[in-house]
Formats: sequence, structure tokens, C-alpha cells
Amino acid sequence: MTTDSALLSRRRSHSPIAYSASPLDRADAVRGDPARLAAVMAGEGARLLRLDGLAPVFSDTGGLVWVPLSDMPGGPQGAELIFLGLDAQGHGHFAPVVADLAGSTAPAAADLRRLLDAMPAADLAIYGGARSLVDWHARHRFCARCGSATRLAKGGWQRSCVNEACGADHFPSVDPVTIMLVEHDGCLLLGRQPRFPAGRYSALAGFVEPGETMEEAVAREVFEEAGVRVRDVRYVASQPWPYPSSLMIACHALADDRAIAIDANELEDAQWFTRAQVAAALAGASDALFEVPPPSAVARHLLEWWMEQAVSV
Amino acid sequence: MTTDSALLSRRRSHSPIAYSASPLDRADAVRGDPARLAAVMAGEGARLLRLDGLAPVFSDTGGLVWVPLSDMPGGPQGAELIFLGLDAQGHGHFAPVVADLAGSTAPAAADLRRLLDAMPAADLAIYGGARSLVDWHARHRFCARCGSATRLAKGGWQRSCVNEACGADHFPSVDPVTIMLVEHDGCLLLGRQPRFPAGRYSALAGFVEPGETMEEAVAREVFEEAGVRVRDVRYVASQPWPYPSSLMIACHALADDRAIAIDANELEDAQWFTRAQVAAALAGASDALFEVPPPSAVARHLLEWWMEQAVSV
Ligand SMILES: [Zn+2]
Ligand SMILES: [Zn+2]
Repeated sequence: MTTDSALLSRRRSHSPIAYSASPLDRADAVRGDPARLAAVMAGEGARLLRLDGLAPVFSDTGGLVWVPLSDMPGGPQGAELIFLGLDAQGHGHFAPVVADLAGSTAPAAADLRRLLDAMPAADLAIYGGARSLVDWHARHRFCARCGSATRLAKGGWQRSCVNEACGADHFPSVDPVTIMLVEHDGCLLLGRQPRFPAGRYSALAGFVEPGETMEEAVAREVFEEAGVRVRDVRYVASQPWPYPSSLMIACHALADDRAIAIDANELEDAQWFTRAQVAAALAGASDALFEVPPPSAVARHLLEWWMEQAVSV
Repeated sequence: MTTDSALLSRRRSHSPIAYSASPLDRADAVRGDPARLAAVMAGEGARLLRLDGLAPVFSDTGGLVWVPLSDMPGGPQGAELIFLGLDAQGHGHFAPVVADLAGSTAPAAADLRRLLDAMPAADLAIYGGARSLVDWHARHRFCARCGSATRLAKGGWQRSCVNEACGADHFPSVDPVTIMLVEHDGCLLLGRQPRFPAGRYSALAGFVEPGETMEEAVAREVFEEAGVRVRDVRYVASQPWPYPSSLMIACHALADDRAIAIDANELEDAQWFTRAQVAAALAGASDALFEVPPPSAVARHLLEWWMEQAVSV
């Protein structure tokens, strides 16, 4: 059967979704077993990710830098460490909890993103997961239920309230976000947010809210941001996006007509682009009407996926 | 085009996903505009959902009960209220923030679920979204970043830290959860958790974690819980699930073989069932080998969807 997702899977074997396909085994069973976790931490190959605030320290070849866990200043005992998983040799990989993110001398956001876009895919996947967790720990040092302090638990996959009367457990969150190509008669609706680089247009996007399906979220967001009604929402692909911790859910939908009414709080502009115009933008043609998102963005994959469709759907 | 999702859409026009398709317009623009929100609250038709803890108060006909917002003891001014949306007449619908959930005399969980399963679909959808929000407010009265108190903002779609030096904003969370039918040679892998009613088997499920796609989450969960390797993960449908606030992402995947090794911390049992055995269970046959989940669960929809596939995929 050649569904679209099967087609996409084949495609993705050549060009994986950025931040996905981490080579580490999350080894869920280790997290909750203090003896096994201690053994992994004490293992000779155990290593610690070097971070500068939330940014990675880059190696000479643009990859991640790991140091032996035993070389950690003060030693790993008592430190808040996140267990990222095991490599193929069974070596534990850890990231440090960063209590104060303010001291970072990491590159500015745009420069950092360029360096990350050039990072080997496996390292980028490990970094993305680690970054979401490190950021989550920094933002959850207190219990949202009672205001007491929290402490790291289960290898960093939980924080627990220190107040015994409360005892709430908190878990690293993932925020589902829909991102969608809206199509009408062979043209695509793309928009630009004020924060985008000059000339950039991309797929509309927005958080899934409590009480709605992802299909309902797609329809609501497109109507809120662009005033366009859609139907026949289809799932295409997903991506973990570590800014700070989203699950990007990439979809395609059909519009009933082309009238646009943008919400100026969300978008600076939205336009319909023809297939030829999208092709020129993807090719980086000198006369392209807009600039597409970088390959690390699932929106770029959506555009490539759409161009590969043999016939307009 | 007859994709599976198109087939499902047609099916769903007859039997909607429970907790979805709320008739209320979320009116996002009202939330962030104090003047518009005040006008909606002062409107003659503005109404407040009656709750008993997190449970609804049931009407004589098994639906929700609404009271005029102006009848609220003490009045709506100063109360923490969640703006659920506008009905077709433009009347504002609100839910009360419940600071202390301990005083509830609501029916026990199993009885409550039976009452909810019999609730009109539109009321159930409104209730589900409201419940997730009310529960979130009760669990987020303090700032996870600095431990200070938080106050409701933007019509209940935000809580903001009262500590000006922190100023963190917090948003109602949605946790993406994968739930999957795993198929091998025309048979389905279903499992039972210890907390299930006697005889119940259902699709395996688990939270999506930071750093993974939904397809990777499906594969990881099935391997962790049942020791089965899967491939060709396909998205089928989604559902908002208000216990407390999940986005259920229902998928189908193919297994490489049938060897099962369950994680006894997660599952009590897992078995492969033939198409005829699943059909008998869905029909509630007296000789059925197991009991399917109730119609309100997306797992039931997955089973019905699978039976409707003309040929095994
Ligand atoms: Zn607490
Ligand atoms: Zn704060």
C-alpha cells in the first residue's frame, strides 16, 4: 500500500527529520532503578555532555563534546544529572542540570542556530532531547502545586516535591504544536511572523489546546491567524523541537477559498503561492518570491513533501 | 482520494471521537483583551458551569448544568474564572477555578465515567476541555520557576507569576500520548494494565518524551512494554483526553514477529488476537475472549477502524 506516510518514510530514509533518530537507547528501566542507574554512572565509559548555558560546546568538527563523568568537578555524587541513555556499547550519557542559565556565553540565537544546522544529525538529536530536559529542570525548581522546592528523581525524568504533605511528582513536558500546509487549487498558504528573517515565509503553526483534536487545532489556528476555513486535515510527519520542548505535528489541509484576513498579532503577512513559486523558493532561485525555512525545520520537509506529490491532492 | 484518514473522517461523521467537537467558539481574541472579556462576562447570557470538584453536576437529562454568571455567590468580579468560549448566540461560557478539590462529593471514578459515557456529545466535549483547565489551575497555583504564587490571566488560558523579578507565564499543558494497534499477519497485539476492569484488553499506550517523534515514541513504548519491534507507524486519529490533559495520538504499526516479553511494571498481560476474536469482542459476544474499551476511548475507535479495513495492511 502506498499511503502518503509510506512515501514520506521512504523519503525520510534519505533525509531524516532534524532532531530525531537519536542513537541513544533511552533505557527507561534504568531510570527508575537506583542500583542500575548508579552502576551506569560508575561505568568506565560514562560521559557528561558539555554545555554553555543551554547551548552545546562545539567540538573542532562541529559536534558535541563529552567528558568522562568521573572528571566532573566535585564528582557526579550529589550532582543533579540527567540520564540521556545508553550508546551501543552500553555507556551512559548524561547532561548536567543548570541551575542558573544566566551566565552563558553561548553564541547569539541566530549564530547558534547556524552552528546547530551544521551539526552531525546524531549529535543534533542527542542535543535536542538534552536541551529540552535541561531547560525543563531549570524552569521547574519549585512545585507548581505547593511552591516548595523540588528535587531531581528517576535519572532526571522526574522532579518530586520535597514537601511530604504535597508529594507531587512532575514530569518533563512536551507541547504538541500543529504546523500546516493549507492548499487551495494547487496553491499554498504561507505566512510570515514579524520575528522571521527578511523574506522568509513558512507554514502556519500553533499549540494544541486542552479539549481539541489535532485536526481541530489545525482548523482553529488557520482561521484565527489567516481567516481561512479548512477541511480534510491530514497528518504528514512529526518532529521533536527543543525550543523549549514541542512535538511539531505537521499536517496538510484543504481550504474552501482564498480570502485572507490575518491576525496582525500573529502574522505580518500571509499569501498564496503557486507550485512554481514554491519550487523556485525551494531551489533558492535568484528570482524566488520568498525564502523557505532551513532544512532543520519540519516546515521545510512539509514543502518538499508537497512538491513530491505526483498530483495535487 | 480514499486515504485511511478520509475513510475515518467519513466514519467519524457518524460516530464522533468522544470529548471532541465542542460547539463553543474558543474566541481566542477575547481572552487577551480585558475590555472584550469584561463585556462577555457582563453579557446577559453569560453562564457558569456547575462543578462538584472536578466532576460535573449532572442535569435531570444527564447533561451539564449552567447557572447565570451574575448569580455567582460574591459575583464574578475578582473570582478566578476560565473563559471556555462563546456559543452560537455569542453567550460567554465560564468555569470556576477550584482552589481546593478535596471537598468534592462527586461519584467515584467508575460511576462518574459511566455517567459521562452517557452524556450528550456536545456537553461531554465542553466538560472535557473545562475539566483539563480547572485541574491545571488547581495544580499550578505556584510558579515552578521561583515558587511564588501565580494569578490567573488571559481568561484562564494563562497563569502569571506575581513575583515581578521572575514574571514567568505558564500555560495549560497538553501531554501527547501515543496509543497504538500493533499488527502481525492479521492479528492484533493488545494488553491489559492491572487497573483495567476484569477481562478488558486495549491498545498499548505511552507518553511522547522530549527528543522523539511520535513514530519513535510508538516504537519505544511497544518495545518497552511488550518487547515487540515495530515498523511502518501510521497516524489514524487523535482525541483530547481530560484525565488530566492528554492528546491521544492513535496509530497503527506493523510488528516483525510475535514474541512477547512484557514489562510487568506496565502490563499484566499482552496477547495476539485474531480478526475473528476482535470482531467477537467488539460485538460483545458471549464467548468473546476479552472486553473492549468503552466507546468514549479512542482505543475503541482504533479497533473499529481496523475492522473496517477491507484488507489487512
Ligand atoms: Zn508540592
Ligand atoms: Zn516566578
